[in-house]
Amino acid sequence: MTPAPLFVRFVASDDGPWSVVSNRTVTGPGLPDAAAVTVIEGRDSVPDATDAAWSLSGVVSNERYVTRAERAALEARQQPLGRADATAAALIPIRKSPRWWQLTQDERRDIFEERSHHVRIGVGALPAVARRLHHSRDLCEPFDFLTWFEFAPSQVEEFDEVLAVLRASEEWTYVEREVEIRLTRS
Amino acid sequence: MTPAPLFVRFVASDDGPWSVVSNRTVTGPGLPDAAAVTVIEGRDSVPDATDAAWSLSGVVSNERYVTRAERAALEARQQPLGRADATAAALIPIRKSPRWWQLTQDERRDIFEERSHHVRIGVGALPAVARRLHHSRDLCEPFDFLTWFEFAPSQVEEFDEVLAVLRASEEWTYVEREVEIRLTRS
Repeated sequence: MTPAPLFVRFVASDDGPWSVVSNRTVTGPGLPDAAAVTVIEGRDSVPDATDAAWSLSGVVSNERYVTRAERAALEARQQPLGRADATAAALIPIRKSPRWWQLTQDERRDIFEERSHHVRIGVGALPAVARRLHHSRDLCEPFDFLTWFEFAPSQVEEFDEVLAVLRASEEWTYVEREVEIRLTRS
Repeated sequence: MTPAPLFVRFVASDDGPWSVVSNRTVTGPGLPDAAAVTVIEGRDSVPDATDAAWSLSGVVSNERYVTRAERAALEARQQPLGRADATAAALIPIRKSPRWWQLTQDERRDIFEERSHHVRIGVGALPAVARRLHHSRDLCEPFDFLTWFEFAPSQVEEFDEVLAVLRASEEWTYVEREVEIRLTRS
């Protein structure tokens, strides 16, 4: 949504503001275990800790599929990151297959929304779940997208249900690598 | 078109395979003059020369607007880079305004093709002009796009005409920085 891209790093190491509760490999190769994750905004900030188990980067950039009407529906309900009661988080790195990226824009849009209802399902999870999408593909990173979610611990079942619905969609047949990291504010 | 993004740098310095014929600022701040440009493919290749006048990076990545029908029309006529008789080249870095990036995907598509006919005009310039688009915005670079063109010197008037038509389009009212560098193979 922001016009100027925001570079963000997720660094896993021994300690940090978000403690890792679980590290689950959904599809493809996983990520090494670590005790905590630190979210660092900005490209010119501190280097990765030398003890980092892994470091993933992405950019909060312009949307690729959402229409004006869909953006209006999202903006009417979505909440910012950092809410006091949103002490649970999830980081879900995803890579889609070459087959997905070889599709044209109209074909990807069809699968994303007309057939998988990605936005409609997401809007249904609002305002309970705050979300920020980071694009990684053009950075030649191991994943294409890093999505960060924040919610109150009482909302975890609703969040789980949204993930299950999306993973059963046609869009997810194009996901070739997915890791799900659950966190709690330290 | 390639499924795996290809990282590319354009480095301007004292010498290189492409000699600079002209360096013209079309809109906004220009780029320093240099004698030659080197095109370096791949992220892990040699560092920039210390005498580089400037270095711009981009990624050959998935298309953002083209439909299946448009891609078919492009693929039927486009030619690869590196043709023996294509000794003239142009590098055109462009940055679009925040107003463009705040538009939604459907709005940008409308302006790009339905109202500015970007693809239709581009197809008309094929097969004379070979073209490769590099996305820079997610790399937090000074430009959003770097487009590289190659053509035979005899085609220069046709190329000039295509540029003039595109620059008169509604899409170009969103261009806030543009530089045009003409080159000839050294």
